Amino acid sequence: MGRDLLRSWMEQAGLIVRFDDFGNMTGRRPGTDDLPALLLASHIDSVCNGGRYDGAYGVLAALEVVRTLNDHGIVTRRPIEVVNWTNEEGVRFEPAMLCSGAVAGRFERSYVYDRVDRDGRRFEDELRAIGYLGNEQNRPGPAAVCLELHIEQGPILEAAGLPVGIVDGIVGITWLDITLDGRTDHAGPSPMPLRRDALVAAARLVAGVDALARATEGAVGTVGRLIPEPNVINTIPGRVVMSADFRHPDLATLDQLVTKLERLAATVATESGVAIAIDRFWTSEPTPFPPALVGEIERACSDLDLASQHLWSGAGHDAKYVQTLCPTGMIFVRSRDGLSHAEGEYSSPEDLTAGANVLLLAAHSLAGSANQ
Amino acid sequence: MGRDLLRSWMEQAGLIVRFDDFGNMTGRRPGTDDLPALLLASHIDSVCNGGRYDGAYGVLAALEVVRTLNDHGIVTRRPIEVVNWTNEEGVRFEPAMLCSGAVAGRFERSYVYDRVDRDGRRFEDELRAIGYLGNEQNRPGPAAVCLELHIEQGPILEAAGLPVGIVDGIVGITWLDITLDGRTDHAGPSPMPLRRDALVAAARLVAGVDALARATEGAVGTVGRLIPEPNVINTIPGRVVMSADFRHPDLATLDQLVTKLERLAATVATESGVAIAIDRFWTSEPTPFPPALVGEIERACSDLDLASQHLWSGAGHDAKYVQTLCPTGMIFVRSRDGLSHAEGEYSSPEDLTAGANVLLLAAHSLAGSANQ
Repeated sequence: MGRDLLRSWMEQAGLIVRFDDFGNMTGRRPGTDDLPALLLASHIDSVCNGGRYDGAYGVLAALEVVRTLNDHGIVTRRPIEVVNWTNEEGVRFEPAMLCSGAVAGRFERSYVYDRVDRDGRRFEDELRAIGYLGNEQNRPGPAAVCLELHIEQGPILEAAGLPVGIVDGIVGITWLDITLDGRTDHAGPSPMPLRRDALVAAARLVAGVDALARATEGAVGTVGRLIPEPNVINTIPGRVVMSADFRHPDLATLDQLVTKLERLAATVATESGVAIAIDRFWTSEPTPFPPALVGEIERACSDLDLASQHLWSGAGHDAKYVQTLCPTGMIFVRSRDGLSHAEGEYSSPEDLTAGANVLLLAAHSLAGSANQ
Repeated sequence: MGRDLLRSWMEQAGLIVRFDDFGNMTGRRPGTDDLPALLLASHIDSVCNGGRYDGAYGVLAALEVVRTLNDHGIVTRRPIEVVNWTNEEGVRFEPAMLCSGAVAGRFERSYVYDRVDRDGRRFEDELRAIGYLGNEQNRPGPAAVCLELHIEQGPILEAAGLPVGIVDGIVGITWLDITLDGRTDHAGPSPMPLRRDALVAAARLVAGVDALARATEGAVGTVGRLIPEPNVINTIPGRVVMSADFRHPDLATLDQLVTKLERLAATVATESGVAIAIDRFWTSEPTPFPPALVGEIERACSDLDLASQHLWSGAGHDAKYVQTLCPTGMIFVRSRDGLSHAEGEYSSPEDLTAGANVLLLAAHSLAGSANQ
């Protein structure tokens, strides 16, 4: 129903709507010249109990850019394509950013089609069932450049008191699985010096992940998951399985964080008698955005007299994969309390307008006015 | 079936068997004088997948003491009663040490009778069904003194290379529930200085419980249970619920450990922005054994030329409650790897023999020989 509504709005704005073999929906506004398009792209899918802004804002603001150009009778040299990428959140069909990734060549079509939801239903079958299984030739582009406008989903702009952020890139992310093997014992009759308490050792790694990230400019580090065994009040935990998540704009720094954590783990293992195994099972490399495009967004902010700052995105976005198709940039707007993926997600109408105006000016510049 | 077998063995050893209103089974060997009895008491119930020694050893060694007195034609002034307490482990009917506690006046009879297992079956009904619901006048005693022989369930004697331990008492235990409330956030877009990570704060308390116990002679401290929420890799835990278990022979020291932890929690809360609530929901006071009785066991070890050491029991035992009925003492034997409540539980025949001989000599002394 959301797709149908978006489609009708796109058509009302004069866009020519098509959808491709992954259901990605594109509304095209022709240009005067035979040039690759400017994409204004985000997603309208969400998470369970999610908010109204994450994703949808970027698509609807792009549509509003088109309407504004229409209202002012502005014709551009490049075509402009408003794109709604399918399944960015990856909530129903894992992984996230599935269909921008597919168009960017990151995932095989058969892989995407065979993704199943929790009820065992296939992606391809479900897309066909709702009438949005289209053709490969309907994919977005060919594209010269892409812009994605999105809520920040973090507290940086709010803390700085700024409505808009200029995104320098998407940080690299690395995920670790850490297993600590000590010895399960009665909490009572086991003297402290004879213990091999896996949770006490794990606590040093939790503190270590936090301290390493704090000591590294621009880094974040999180232990989100930690499970002691047997996890009962009067038993010394013999085993802990925990995660670590490090993020940084620079891959070498990310590698250093992991190396330092491994070094700490070796020390903890020696001192505690608890065996520690670290498995770095996934890394997403940093994606810096092209400086020229970042400068284009900076200029738009300046032309609007908008106070803004540069920042890196700590979360993944479709822009990460689109970057491999064409130069891509992102604009953030302030999120109240940094909250997202929750019904309380909120950005003020003023901030949303400011972000959309930045998108408008940058789009106008990148698509090239054909009016005079 | 275990009860029937024990009963037949008791009768074969010439004991007069009776069972009381809680199913506690007593095999009485008369004395020459009209004196309160010496109890030799433990339990034959166990835990799921438990071992062969925890509990049963103390009852069977007591039976062997009787057989040995019989074999040598030794008559005592006091009667000797071999006691099998019902439901020491508390696995089927909570809480633990239910029926020694009932006889000691710690639990009302109606409370005990209405305990239900996981299938909703009542204690009283189940005891009647197996034919072991007896009368109040069949309770053990009246008793002058009680000895309990038990495996150590800890690694102290093994680490010291000693077969037998003289137990000075049962430590006090206090249990805390600790709740930490921070803020759940995306692991990506949340800069380190703006976080309120409940798990990082919890890690400081885990380390604190360990450090406080290590810095306090004779104390142990354990965080056995810790549950972060939402417990997923890419989300900062907004909430942690964890336990703490402190044990020490002295109640004032136990109180101090809690006070120090509360002080640490206040510091952590201030520094991290994470609210911390501590609920000290249960305390079992320390139970020191009477020095005269401890000395009796020491003498038996010395008469046997047995290397031994004093230690406190870190776990609860029936002796804790029996202490309120009559002076009570305990003897420990070495446990391989300190293991118990597991099928791998093991004490060597040599150590088991040594412990039983200590029980024999102490019993002989306490019951008073009537032979010469």
